[in-house]
Amino acid sequence: MEQRISLITLAVRDLDASRRFYVDGLGWEAFLDVDDVFMLRVGEHLLLSLWAHDSFTAEVGPSTLGTGIAPITLAHNVSSDVEVDTILDEMSRAGGQIVELATRRVWGGYSGYATDPDGYRWEIANAGAGRLTALVVPSA
Amino acid sequence: MEQRISLITLAVRDLDASRRFYVDGLGWEAFLDVDDVFMLRVGEHLLLSLWAHDSFTAEVGPSTLGTGIAPITLAHNVSSDVEVDTILDEMSRAGGQIVELATRRVWGGYSGYATDPDGYRWEIANAGAGRLTALVVPSA
Repeated sequence: MEQRISLITLAVRDLDASRRFYVDGLGWEAFLDVDDVFMLRVGEHLLLSLWAHDSFTAEVGPSTLGTGIAPITLAHNVSSDVEVDTILDEMSRAGGQIVELATRRVWGGYSGYATDPDGYRWEIANAGAGRLTALVVPSA
Repeated sequence: MEQRISLITLAVRDLDASRRFYVDGLGWEAFLDVDDVFMLRVGEHLLLSLWAHDSFTAEVGPSTLGTGIAPITLAHNVSSDVEVDTILDEMSRAGGQIVELATRRVWGGYSGYATDPDGYRWEIANAGAGRLTALVVPSA
């Protein structure tokens, strides 16, 4: 099995709210947009798929959506602290909720968290100069 | 904000169990492996980060880990039905649990689901010939 992820699928309660946030708010472009799912290209061979909860449940099973903080986060890394603050602000203007302003972390980086309409947490992070930033930030 | 994801972080109960599955079982290589986290490169600019639940909680907040099916899935796409079956078998031998053998889906593809040690669902899928497969399967 090759070491790669093709899609990250998130169950969502209201696909229109997701569209407003990701497409209208952040200005991201849909790769696919049909009845109960829309997908956004978020990497070379990677899609983020927002799937209506009913359809998710029918195929995957009843999920814990809405019962607390999902045990996952999605990170968007950049190479400066200023960009972290700017993007958190952008997420807020797009309708996201800032759950924690950026702060210096025990692991050495600088990051903050904002949620999408379903409460999924996006971490906006600057991990500092090093091999992690070199790998995940295309422009670094 | 650029349209990209840098890291997918999953909170895990037992980092050693995760290592046994992903590294020993599937033969994947760690990009970083320290006390409470290990990361696997799963794309051009993408890392899958397995983070000990206590550390996750300390930074992100108490999560729903362990209380049911997480409202997310990770997909690994290939370009043939045979590969789907082979990889599900491989995941099973690595210690994963097959929660659903591959079957033809309403959306036209062929896929099945297996879990990692924390119950996170991996979908192994062949979406058939088309632009989705062309985008997410590097060899397609």
